[in-house]
Amino acid sequence: MATGKINVSVENIFPLIKKFLYSDHEIFLRELISNATDATLKLKHLTDIGETDVKYGNPVIEVKVDKEGKKLHVIDQGVGMTKEEVEKYINEVAFSGAEEFLEKYKDSAKDSGIIGHFGLGFYSAFMVANKVEIITKSYKDEPAAHWVCEGTTEFTLGDADKKERGTEIILHINEEDEEFLEENRIQELLVKYNKFMPIPIKFGTKEETLPLPEDAPEDAEAETKTVDNIINNPEPAWTKQPNDLEDKDYKSFYRELYPMQFEEPLFHIHLNVDYPFNLTGILYFPKMTQDMNIQKDKIQLYQNQVYVTDNVEGIVPEFLTMLRGVIDSPDIPLNVSRSYLQADGAVKKISSYITRKVADKLKSLFNNNREDFEQKWNDIKIVIEYGMLSEDKFYEKAQKFALYPTVENEYFTFEELQEKIKVNQTDKDGNLVVLYASNQDEQHSYIEAAKAKGYKVLLLDSPIISHLLQKMEGEKEKITFVRVDSDQVDNLIKKDEEKISKLSEEEKEKLKGDFEKVIPKEKYTVQLEAMDSDAAPLLITQPEFMRRMKEMQQTGGGGMFGMGNMPEMYNLVVNTNHPLISDILNTKTEKKQERLIKHSLDLARLSQNLLKGEELTNFVKRSFDMVK
Amino acid sequence: MATGKINVSVENIFPLIKKFLYSDHEIFLRELISNATDATLKLKHLTDIGETDVKYGNPVIEVKVDKEGKKLHVIDQGVGMTKEEVEKYINEVAFSGAEEFLEKYKDSAKDSGIIGHFGLGFYSAFMVANKVEIITKSYKDEPAAHWVCEGTTEFTLGDADKKERGTEIILHINEEDEEFLEENRIQELLVKYNKFMPIPIKFGTKEETLPLPEDAPEDAEAETKTVDNIINNPEPAWTKQPNDLEDKDYKSFYRELYPMQFEEPLFHIHLNVDYPFNLTGILYFPKMTQDMNIQKDKIQLYQNQVYVTDNVEGIVPEFLTMLRGVIDSPDIPLNVSRSYLQADGAVKKISSYITRKVADKLKSLFNNNREDFEQKWNDIKIVIEYGMLSEDKFYEKAQKFALYPTVENEYFTFEELQEKIKVNQTDKDGNLVVLYASNQDEQHSYIEAAKAKGYKVLLLDSPIISHLLQKMEGEKEKITFVRVDSDQVDNLIKKDEEKISKLSEEEKEKLKGDFEKVIPKEKYTVQLEAMDSDAAPLLITQPEFMRRMKEMQQTGGGGMFGMGNMPEMYNLVVNTNHPLISDILNTKTEKKQERLIKHSLDLARLSQNLLKGEELTNFVKRSFDMVK
Repeated sequence: MATGKINVSVENIFPLIKKFLYSDHEIFLRELISNATDATLKLKHLTDIGETDVKYGNPVIEVKVDKEGKKLHVIDQGVGMTKEEVEKYINEVAFSGAEEFLEKYKDSAKDSGIIGHFGLGFYSAFMVANKVEIITKSYKDEPAAHWVCEGTTEFTLGDADKKERGTEIILHINEEDEEFLEENRIQELLVKYNKFMPIPIKFGTKEETLPLPEDAPEDAEAETKTVDNIINNPEPAWTKQPNDLEDKDYKSFYRELYPMQFEEPLFHIHLNVDYPFNLTGILYFPKMTQDMNIQKDKIQLYQNQVYVTDNVEGIVPEFLTMLRGVIDSPDIPLNVSRSYLQADGAVKKISSYITRKVADKLKSLFNNNREDFEQKWNDIKIVIEYGMLSEDKFYEKAQKFALYPTVENEYFTFEELQEKIKVNQTDKDGNLVVLYASNQDEQHSYIEAAKAKGYKVLLLDSPIISHLLQKMEGEKEKITFVRVDSDQVDNLIKKDEEKISKLSEEEKEKLKGDFEKVIPKEKYTVQLEAMDSDAAPLLITQPEFMRRMKEMQQTGGGGMFGMGNMPEMYNLVVNTNHPLISDILNTKTEKKQERLIKHSLDLARLSQNLLKGEELTNFVKRSFDMVK
Repeated sequence: MATGKINVSVENIFPLIKKFLYSDHEIFLRELISNATDATLKLKHLTDIGETDVKYGNPVIEVKVDKEGKKLHVIDQGVGMTKEEVEKYINEVAFSGAEEFLEKYKDSAKDSGIIGHFGLGFYSAFMVANKVEIITKSYKDEPAAHWVCEGTTEFTLGDADKKERGTEIILHINEEDEEFLEENRIQELLVKYNKFMPIPIKFGTKEETLPLPEDAPEDAEAETKTVDNIINNPEPAWTKQPNDLEDKDYKSFYRELYPMQFEEPLFHIHLNVDYPFNLTGILYFPKMTQDMNIQKDKIQLYQNQVYVTDNVEGIVPEFLTMLRGVIDSPDIPLNVSRSYLQADGAVKKISSYITRKVADKLKSLFNNNREDFEQKWNDIKIVIEYGMLSEDKFYEKAQKFALYPTVENEYFTFEELQEKIKVNQTDKDGNLVVLYASNQDEQHSYIEAAKAKGYKVLLLDSPIISHLLQKMEGEKEKITFVRVDSDQVDNLIKKDEEKISKLSEEEKEKLKGDFEKVIPKEKYTVQLEAMDSDAAPLLITQPEFMRRMKEMQQTGGGGMFGMGNMPEMYNLVVNTNHPLISDILNTKTEKKQERLIKHSLDLARLSQNLLKGEELTNFVKRSFDMVK
């Protein structure tokens, strides 16, 4: 049995790192600017703790395009490197200078914001450059160094006459990557990846209009001045303490994140935790529309203020991906190229922290300003209802703030609702019956009938509501939800009352036969009911269970298998106490009776939005004739 | 100036490869089975070309879970390794034995299906195992070797007494990864990643029911037999030649891919190209619904029969991501961990090849069996229309097969349609006016009016149709699309005909005044028209331009800025030649006139689906009273 050591040769690994590690060429710029930022932050830390007496000053990172020379420069004013350090950090692939620094200064530097981790980012320069130069001068009193490498594993290292402290990286851009010599393209990349990085990034200059002096004549032209074009906001709102921010700061940061967004967010949630993991961020609730898909992928993920991705799947629970904002955590495990989330226990913890935090915020908004919360309810309910459906912990917490609006614009918690309706809406078996409508227009006549009985009617119109009601019925005892058009009003909440029918049994039998002769059996079941004489004479209803199962199938699963394709079936309720029904019963000629029944059925179908196409056209024509 | 060599130390790079290269722990099994497959394919190649006289036989790859021993075994019967080869291939990180093999046998082995590429996959075992053993015996007559490594860069290498040719990898699974000791989990992974790999994969055994002999008595019980549980289909349909496959083979492969899918695909497209890149695959057109988002991410991407991802964004043009099926190409550039597509010029070529191929197939389906194509049109149109909108090349090709169905179920190409309608539907300025409806039910009365004039009315009901019409109007000359309810029928296609009004100018003026007193101005513009006396007396229309711009804004951009939020405006067309209108004009009491106008307006609104809520309830109540 021999022992040995696993080996890796640079000839094998270097090409992989250069070509296949990163998914996207454009990443090189993010990596180089991360390195420049680290070099500057290291200097800041060393001056902060008094390890050096050089002046930190106001360092910037400069990016310059030399289109003619086909070169791209990234210049920082950070620690720089001595020749020995170049040997150590650059010529040793996967040796992370950032990790070493953090290790060395572990007590003082843990919040320094240093980004580097794997020691691979620099080599991504070779994805777009066939030759890379480093000209660097350390903050220590040593001569500057000049390193050159043409993409092979060979390099040269000599002296340079650079006078200022810091590092300049020069990329000789490949022919096929010349897009990175376009100013617009570089500007775009800087904004995408580095917009909130902690050291100012200068890219060219811009003209700025000076304010006119107060005593300027009316026709005076404003003067302009050339100033540095600074790409980034080094202190974005999420890096500050919530106490230091006002509502307007959150709103203006929202505008910074989404410059093309005109509507203001409804409210924000500032995330800020450092145990058991570090995470900061601000989430915003925007106004929602019904289409949940359009709105996803608006949350941006950062790591130490470096943009990583806008795909936060896994980190943010699915029901919250409709929110907007940023999340920043050095602890979110990403793979080497930072493009892909590592499946990991820590990520689950982050996700459940965010869920809890959002629930707490919603509860405090509800408690602190209920009126405002009620006004926003319709814009946020889709998120909350979806969360209640998909996360049991959130469902529990939401009991304290989830609202149930009525068609009359009252907003109740479920507990309040129960209290309000328990006397009038408990049926003879002791079940509390919660009535609801899904559309105030379409179910108007049914809503009115229920209101006339003193019932409260909820307005529940989210696309996933049938799933949520199903869950609530399963979880709460002796509660059923019934849509107002699922039966005639006296049957919605069955009580021990018997309505007296004006018609005799014989008459009822004849009436039923008369209707069944005319009404298509495969669509309508005729159901005679003794209702108030001023209720509708005819009425179409659809039983709750059937309809809900169909809806559940249509909105993404659940319900009962195969129900989605069942034909629609309705009940035709005939009010035996209505005078029109007596008229129909007593009509002499069969033809006239048929016409009366059909026209009445058309009217009942109109109330339930079932009269369409040719039948509607004929109805309208007939009605115009009747008017004339 | 000194020169030197970039260096990489295994201590730095090994932990990265183990922990951060792969985004997902479960990947290790795919990588190990890929290696086992390569070992077997290499042996096959060597026996095929006569380099060895060992028998290839019927090798399988076996996966075994030893839950008690906390071990997972992957065993192949391939080439195996000598001690020297273990030294060379295993102990040298990122040295790819597969690449070396392909290089050595480059003329004969290029289609051997060998998977390996980067020489890193094996080390992914350390993501889930704290100790990995290799026991291997080469096909050459040499003793077996035994390699053991406990996750550091140290290993031991000695002799083993393995007798059979091939390699066994033993993973001692970490405590936190014990999910990989569950048979269900391993089964799931094997099905996900290896379902179509080219060497049979055995995972345990299963019971199989034997067929009863023909003369068996009725009450005979079928015998069962224990057989190997083979996970994969080593020869999936896409690896075969189209000529060797029948329609039923494509259908049964669809069922293999989507076992939970009950509907059959409409048709398939077999992709098969080897220049300028290698790509095979089968795409299926499923029945589409209107909701485009649900259907995405059903195409699976493979590389040499190894499953990579179901995110084919970039490879397949966006409008085709609604299709289903597989794509397999060794040439699709993925990053090292194979989880992420490299942005690359080759990918663009693949995408446009697929677009062209799909267009060609659609054209040949249209040419070969037009009737069948017409029947399928409504199920596929959303893809084709979306493609016409988003890809100009596809738009051009689609001129030959895109269909325009009429409300009477005729299907025309645009050229045929032009021919058919040019006489009757050219307006006085020489523009060809194409009439369409978006909903046969809702626009029924308008459709009927147009049909009565001998016009063809198209039925165009895709959600993106307004964008496509806009594009077509821009691209074709003297063509306009007009929805049937955008004006009264005589104005849809303006000709040089003057209708005579029964009313005098004075009467018209009075009539207009009477209407404007009753009708809300902010919603309706009263427009008097001399129409046929048997056309509708009142009619609500909405101008094409306005409506289309609003629709475009609502379905994802385009249209005119801000139009999406404009209030709805309609024209109320009053037919001055209709007797009811004369009646209204001549009604004596103002009150009665108002009632007549309002009831007529209600009827007109019914035809345009605008009478809702309380107004509808009142209308129905009033109508029931009128019947009584």
